Amino acid sequence: MDLQPVKGTRDFYPEAMRVRNWIADAWRRVSLRSGFEEYDSPILESLDLFEAKSGPEIAEQLFSFTDRGGRRLAIRPETTPALARMVNAKVNSLPRPIKWFSISRLCRAENPQKGRLREFFQWNIDILGEPSPQADAECVLVAVDALRELGLTAAEVKVRYASRALVTAVLGAAAVGQEQIPKVLSVLDKRDRVPAGAFEAMLRQAVSQDAARQMILRFMDTKEPDAAAVSADLGGELSGGAAADVEAAIDDLRQFRSALGSFGIADWCRYDPGVVRGLAYYTGIVYEVFDATQSLRAVAGGGRYDNLLEVLGGPTLPGTGFGMGDVVLGILLEEKGKLPSEKKFPGQRLDFFVIDADGSSAEQVLSVVAALRRGGLAADFSYKRQPLGKQLKEANRRAALRAAICRGATVTVKDLTSGEQVDRPLEDFLAKPLG
Amino acid sequence: MDLQPVKGTRDFYPEAMRVRNWIADAWRRVSLRSGFEEYDSPILESLDLFEAKSGPEIAEQLFSFTDRGGRRLAIRPETTPALARMVNAKVNSLPRPIKWFSISRLCRAENPQKGRLREFFQWNIDILGEPSPQADAECVLVAVDALRELGLTAAEVKVRYASRALVTAVLGAAAVGQEQIPKVLSVLDKRDRVPAGAFEAMLRQAVSQDAARQMILRFMDTKEPDAAAVSADLGGELSGGAAADVEAAIDDLRQFRSALGSFGIADWCRYDPGVVRGLAYYTGIVYEVFDATQSLRAVAGGGRYDNLLEVLGGPTLPGTGFGMGDVVLGILLEEKGKLPSEKKFPGQRLDFFVIDADGSSAEQVLSVVAALRRGGLAADFSYKRQPLGKQLKEANRRAALRAAICRGATVTVKDLTSGEQVDRPLEDFLAKPLG
Repeated sequence: MDLQPVKGTRDFYPEAMRVRNWIADAWRRVSLRSGFEEYDSPILESLDLFEAKSGPEIAEQLFSFTDRGGRRLAIRPETTPALARMVNAKVNSLPRPIKWFSISRLCRAENPQKGRLREFFQWNIDILGEPSPQADAECVLVAVDALRELGLTAAEVKVRYASRALVTAVLGAAAVGQEQIPKVLSVLDKRDRVPAGAFEAMLRQAVSQDAARQMILRFMDTKEPDAAAVSADLGGELSGGAAADVEAAIDDLRQFRSALGSFGIADWCRYDPGVVRGLAYYTGIVYEVFDATQSLRAVAGGGRYDNLLEVLGGPTLPGTGFGMGDVVLGILLEEKGKLPSEKKFPGQRLDFFVIDADGSSAEQVLSVVAALRRGGLAADFSYKRQPLGKQLKEANRRAALRAAICRGATVTVKDLTSGEQVDRPLEDFLAKPLG
Repeated sequence: MDLQPVKGTRDFYPEAMRVRNWIADAWRRVSLRSGFEEYDSPILESLDLFEAKSGPEIAEQLFSFTDRGGRRLAIRPETTPALARMVNAKVNSLPRPIKWFSISRLCRAENPQKGRLREFFQWNIDILGEPSPQADAECVLVAVDALRELGLTAAEVKVRYASRALVTAVLGAAAVGQEQIPKVLSVLDKRDRVPAGAFEAMLRQAVSQDAARQMILRFMDTKEPDAAAVSADLGGELSGGAAADVEAAIDDLRQFRSALGSFGIADWCRYDPGVVRGLAYYTGIVYEVFDATQSLRAVAGGGRYDNLLEVLGGPTLPGTGFGMGDVVLGILLEEKGKLPSEKKFPGQRLDFFVIDADGSSAEQVLSVVAALRRGGLAADFSYKRQPLGKQLKEANRRAALRAAICRGATVTVKDLTSGEQVDRPLEDFLAKPLG
């Protein structure tokens, strides 16, 4: 019998589960205080849904099968298609903006590597029905608020943002044909992940004209999203259409940056035109969250997707949001020493360990335990008939705050931190266990 | 584009998600206060694991597929095999008793019916390493504590318990061969679910001797687990081995009932020898939780399984526990009117809706929102530039407790319940938003 979990999946023993819950609780708390509502979708969806969003290649990247009814089903590798499906189904009855979040179990048929597993948990934040760059900025605020809540600082993580609309406009100005643009974007997306030589070779293959390639490379080194600078990089005056597209994209970036400033998180964020994001459906501001030294994969990524609901058969409805997985984040939090110590994880300490003082109060122990729990207190006891001293030892091992030592009609309450103890009549103790 | 979720699965829109979380929160709260620790296992396991526990027939009841590496994988239909796998892998380092719980997403390849879906959530409570009937009773206490926490009463739900060991001993006394016993148990398990005639025909097929069948039927009508009564039902004096088995099983039931009494939950429970439980691996006390009129499927079911870890390649380690699904429970809570009203769901109310009083404080609104959230308060705002009155209307629609109306260096805090309002300097408000 193989006692290992399936490759790329994890067993969550209690210690690991506490970490997972600690992260998920922060995600949920920050989402709720930011006015987002939680939703969830099934883990099984029709494979068609994912193919409609991402093309037939997606089938290679997920787990799919045909059920006994002949339906092609898939285990969800991401939440966004189901979100679009759900919103489309009730689009006329949902008040706008739709601010939803989910914390989803996802599976991908990948080769497990550091930071990338076959099963993981992902927090998704989405705002639908609001086109303004402030909504993009609010999503970034929510991500930063959660990272801060988990103990990370602006020196430890960075949000790198850019504009998919701007890079697309620049490619247009550089005379890259519309049909070539997705291919070029996917090359640009790889710039930080492959050696410089390999990147240049890939770009040469995608964009044959030297002048266009130089324009693109100059743009990718732009430090600030400034219209004049971008125009200069592109070799001077742009034609009317290209100039308008660049202006519009830069105006969005300006509004976005202004909102980041008002939200007080400008120091967490910086412009980086190298951020393109691989997914085809982004249309506006895009961003990725990395550890400051970029030694790990992305902690989170997201952006604006104004056409996705339409692609999935719905109306045009602007959308923006991000996903943050638990795997890279967990590695980062551990590396930075941010995981709380065992004793501080909430909900794990017993308020009372209930003890049979003399071997004759076993039934009373059970009734005291049940009464304490019913009153909302954490209480436990030992199944073993053993001397008082051994039961007290077990109480300490369980990190109980107090022992309730039952002897006839009396309960001795012992504070296991201070060692102080007090005798109380049983009735009185049950009426007010905490005194 | 099909906008429906896959048959037998559910979309959780925010309203449904709140109900699911409300139930799961009660499960988690009760588990923790009862000294259980949370664990989780992957949703994908080797199909072998489930076949080892339940035989090759299980493959028909779950979703399985072969991945690109040729591994036969299955989506988990239950948590117990993974629990056994995980405990076996660390059996020597885990302090006993092992008290663990999980709240798991499970899938079964069933035909969807009322109370039975293809995807559902199940709470599992298990105590491993403790053989005493008090541990079985503690599991029942935890189930009852959760049902009570969710608003149900002893008049609305009943725990029906019996002993798999007793019925097995009785079948032995009735001269049913060892190899026949699983078949007979699975017939007895159906007694409450099929018409009386059909049940008798099935039993006649499983047990051909008239006298043995009559003994079994008399036993199944026993009102109390009393050794003399059982012996009399079985036609007088039992042989030595059978008598000892019956005595031992009845002594366990006696200790179990005594513990139910000490725990104060005797009124929730009643003995019913008709409870057999279909699963092959139970060895001792078994129980099922039903609505009092038994108009729905079981809300929960469980019992003692002392050999399961061994079957899965581990040492002999006694185990006992139950599973409670969300589907039947959800129907019951709804039918009994126990679901909380929307306004009472925790974490959904905004502490502040932040408003731009005059159209010139938009940036200030953003910075106030970010500061409030960072301080742990729930705060939101309107993306639309609209008059004060419309923003107040949105604050009310969002069920905000207060409006924070920004105008220059002043914030007017308006209590949206009482209508009272007070002007505060911005700095002062940010330092102590709740006054």
